[in-house]
Amino acid sequence: MSSYRPEVAALLGKEFRCLDKGFVRLIDVMGDDAAIVQAARVSYGEGTRSVSDDRKLIRYLMRHRHTSPFEMVEFKFHIKLPIFVARQWIRHRTANVNEYSGRYSIMRQEFYLPEPEQLRPQSALNKQGRAEEPLPPDLAEQLVTRLRQTQNRLYAEYQELLQHNLARELARINLPLSLYTEWYWKIDLHNLFHFLQLRMDEHAQYEIRLYAHTIADIVKVVVPLAWEAFEDYVLGAVTFSRLEQRILARLLRGSQLTDRLLEEAGLEGREAREFRQKLARILREHDEEAP
Amino acid sequence: MSSYRPEVAALLGKEFRCLDKGFVRLIDVMGDDAAIVQAARVSYGEGTRSVSDDRKLIRYLMRHRHTSPFEMVEFKFHIKLPIFVARQWIRHRTANVNEYSGRYSIMRQEFYLPEPEQLRPQSALNKQGRAEEPLPPDLAEQLVTRLRQTQNRLYAEYQELLQHNLARELARINLPLSLYTEWYWKIDLHNLFHFLQLRMDEHAQYEIRLYAHTIADIVKVVVPLAWEAFEDYVLGAVTFSRLEQRILARLLRGSQLTDRLLEEAGLEGREAREFRQKLARILREHDEEAP
Amino acid sequence: MSSYRPEVAALLGKEFRCLDKGFVRLIDVMGDDAAIVQAARVSYGEGTRSVSDDRKLIRYLMRHRHTSPFEMVEFKFHIKLPIFVARQWIRHRTANVNEYSGRYSIMRQEFYLPEPEQLRPQSALNKQGRAEEPLPPDLAEQLVTRLRQTQNRLYAEYQELLQHNLARELARINLPLSLYTEWYWKIDLHNLFHFLQLRMDEHAQYEIRLYAHTIADIVKVVVPLAWEAFEDYVLGAVTFSRLEQRILARLLRGSQLTDRLLEEAGLEGREAREFRQKLARILREHDEEAP
Amino acid sequence: MSSYRPEVAALLGKEFRCLDKGFVRLIDVMGDDAAIVQAARVSYGEGTRSVSDDRKLIRYLMRHRHTSPFEMVEFKFHIKLPIFVARQWIRHRTANVNEYSGRYSIMRQEFYLPEPEQLRPQSALNKQGRAEEPLPPDLAEQLVTRLRQTQNRLYAEYQELLQHNLARELARINLPLSLYTEWYWKIDLHNLFHFLQLRMDEHAQYEIRLYAHTIADIVKVVVPLAWEAFEDYVLGAVTFSRLEQRILARLLRGSQLTDRLLEEAGLEGREAREFRQKLARILREHDEEAP
Repeated sequence: MSSYRPEVAALLGKEFRCLDKGFVRLIDVMGDDAAIVQAARVSYGEGTRSVSDDRKLIRYLMRHRHTSPFEMVEFKFHIKLPIFVARQWIRHRTANVNEYSGRYSIMRQEFYLPEPEQLRPQSALNKQGRAEEPLPPDLAEQLVTRLRQTQNRLYAEYQELLQHNLARELARINLPLSLYTEWYWKIDLHNLFHFLQLRMDEHAQYEIRLYAHTIADIVKVVVPLAWEAFEDYVLGAVTFSRLEQRILARLLRGSQLTDRLLEEAGLEGREAREFRQKLARILREHDEEAP
Repeated sequence: MSSYRPEVAALLGKEFRCLDKGFVRLIDVMGDDAAIVQAARVSYGEGTRSVSDDRKLIRYLMRHRHTSPFEMVEFKFHIKLPIFVARQWIRHRTANVNEYSGRYSIMRQEFYLPEPEQLRPQSALNKQGRAEEPLPPDLAEQLVTRLRQTQNRLYAEYQELLQHNLARELARINLPLSLYTEWYWKIDLHNLFHFLQLRMDEHAQYEIRLYAHTIADIVKVVVPLAWEAFEDYVLGAVTFSRLEQRILARLLRGSQLTDRLLEEAGLEGREAREFRQKLARILREHDEEAP
Repeated sequence: MSSYRPEVAALLGKEFRCLDKGFVRLIDVMGDDAAIVQAARVSYGEGTRSVSDDRKLIRYLMRHRHTSPFEMVEFKFHIKLPIFVARQWIRHRTANVNEYSGRYSIMRQEFYLPEPEQLRPQSALNKQGRAEEPLPPDLAEQLVTRLRQTQNRLYAEYQELLQHNLARELARINLPLSLYTEWYWKIDLHNLFHFLQLRMDEHAQYEIRLYAHTIADIVKVVVPLAWEAFEDYVLGAVTFSRLEQRILARLLRGSQLTDRLLEEAGLEGREAREFRQKLARILREHDEEAP
Repeated sequence: MSSYRPEVAALLGKEFRCLDKGFVRLIDVMGDDAAIVQAARVSYGEGTRSVSDDRKLIRYLMRHRHTSPFEMVEFKFHIKLPIFVARQWIRHRTANVNEYSGRYSIMRQEFYLPEPEQLRPQSALNKQGRAEEPLPPDLAEQLVTRLRQTQNRLYAEYQELLQHNLARELARINLPLSLYTEWYWKIDLHNLFHFLQLRMDEHAQYEIRLYAHTIADIVKVVVPLAWEAFEDYVLGAVTFSRLEQRILARLLRGSQLTDRLLEEAGLEGREAREFRQKLARILREHDEEAP
């Protein structure tokens, strides 16, 4: 309870670079896999006795969306990020934030300048995103140069306004969304998982996705068992709607779910039983031609 | 915007009975399906233009877990419920509550007395629940009588303590968890869906499940399109973990996903494309013997 | 319950201008003063019987920080505001938001350009704010022209990047914080009061203060009794720390609190009694030379 | 950052008794006074440079209700408490909770039995509370015996129902509100202060007040500077409404606020200036007869 595991201690305070000038630093953490188990055992008491093993219990909790024990672990990060990323990030309301203030302090001359290969056309399929293929290299280089020049000009203008003694809170209003800000960000593991699920998703903007992956790498070290369960039951899970199950039922008709298949996949005990029930229900409810 | 649809007006204030003495009453509601669409169109702007139809847009939002437009609809209920149900209910923190106070007021002589057929043994499978089959009818009747006698005795004792002028906040401490309380409960549609998903689940205790189903019947009338989407993409959805997908991949190997199957199931356009991709990914990533 | 009072109906949908191009529009509201009373009466039951009058009950609730009945009223606004204001605003986490997205849609050519007399020097006293006196008019005019030119140039560049088919989510990154965005914002009255308390404060930035005052004018019409109580007991209240009470005790020593003074100030009954106790306690605890 | 101060380490895991069978145990804590300062310095940057001293900065933050740095400290407690106390406690929604479940586990035979001197009559003044003077000792003893007998009888009945194999979730419904439960409770310092402000208040029920005071004693050790500021500016503060200020203005008329008074009270610098302004404003705005 009272000290960090060496792997975690090694992470504390370290700057993990994100984008060209941003970073993620783990400032502090409360709890670990054992803290999740500890809370669950208070909560479910004898209900958890039969699950002798911590890993199994954590996987059970994740599988059945018993989310409150995961709230017992808390992370605090120091993050430096462009303002347009900060604006997406702050939509996650169940976190504590202390952000650098442009009213109190002078903003620093640090702007996000994308790599040329990140300058991509609007996606034809995805209304909100960029396409896979980059712009032509020459054009990309040219646009990056353009963005940089504008950023420099805007900062020079900001400095001039400050020299005219214009209040900082006003001098900043023409600074761009590519400007870096920083904040302390504190969040519990359950809500952090939710953040990661949304922001590691391929529909999230590339820039915030980078941060999410960096945070994920830290979380993996701090709570390895919870992370593994999150990957198996949430991140890597697939969901089928009611309509889709109708088709699934047709495709699965006649297939044989053998013990060997379950075994090879590593499904056993209660989890195997639940899977059998899931399949049986799909076939029963959705395959209208089933006997 | 300014008045309730007749179907909704007909619900307002009406008592829907739950359990023996409890109820759910819809007190007020802000917004409807159109309010969800209105908020989404502000948010996604041109991104929603191609989705001409409200129903399609709502289904798209639900399918892709764009939850914030659903937060724009707000429900206020008056609910009367046993304290042990209230204790499960209050764990949903994103709601506003005004509960009857046993410090200010005298509790009324109203206790939840289960129907004899609800007196069931501890489930052998489910650590938290009751079994399917009831106790023997004679025993059940006898236990119900017992519960009622105890409730009456406890209330008589409560009255006596009050007659000795013991402060209400103390006189109540031996009243049982079966006592009815009541509250005003206000919640937005997104969080209400989450409540319903958890509390309509078969693992939820029977008594709270009854309330959840009663509320669901009200929600259906107020936001029929959102409800339908919720049923198709959340309530009726099935999720497969990473391990389970390995098996699914084996079972699906060799099956043929034809256009006709998609059509018969009612999947078209973007949704059909997404389903094809989902299946292809399962086969690619999980069927190790796939070419 | 089912329809808006005429004064409220007259507000719905109307654009109240804020700054040069922004606005506040009341989209919908659930509840009014009566809804606060209704919830309080459920909650405090007989405890509220003696407070026969709605106004008195609402004032009692506000005075004693019984905040939950105020959560039973919900407001939904449509707001157009510069991004730097939006970034201050969004820090209030207990609200629902749907914002216009620069990933889905093209941002419009609308920027906040301050009035020349708002261009003020950094305050010497207040580390975060601007001074009272404006910059010299010539300089102010010149800087405003400068800001406008920059905004126009930035928008032209944005359009060019879009013409090169750069993804919208990237083309926007050099747009400035003075750019207008818009959102639907839904919040309950208790949290709205908290927002107003912080954002009508003279330490809040002028631009967000304007919005707060506009919203306040709307709230006054919708819940006049709650607003009056909020002004008397929160907005217009003054708080003295422990240290300050020591001085107050010395300054008040020997003064006479007469019934006539109470009466003239409009304090009666319980409220007058509480005031007497407050003063007596200050004198007792903090005036060390008191007998 | 990486280890607990000895005073804090000495508290960890220790049981602090509350009521007859309850307790508060500090399980873990993230951060201390330095963590508040650290977050504030990121947030207010140069704005905090002039406040060289941690204590002064923390007091400044508390005085001006800059609450977010206090959210950077997190406490986790293990608490055993009667259910009627738990029901008041859980109303604080910004915390994480894992409670012992009567569906999964058998409730233990532990009930809260008040001390006879706590058996007090209903307060004549305070609609929700108990009076100062206890019931006659004989009567009190008699009622306590009565409460105990009932508790024993209820537990015996619970055991019997379990022996009939009635599901735990039903067997418990006639257990009383005096039954002890326990939970893990995790909360940040800002919200904990809010909890303490409400629950240490004399209007809070005696039983929850005991817990609040026990927690306060722990908080004092963990964040001594923040605690001191909380006492001076929040707990020990007094607030005057607009009406009350009218009277205050009359009482203060003619009094002399000298530098010596400020000095003796320990007010200096910015804080002294703010106090002068506060008084001047009261006199100006509320003393209609002032020149």
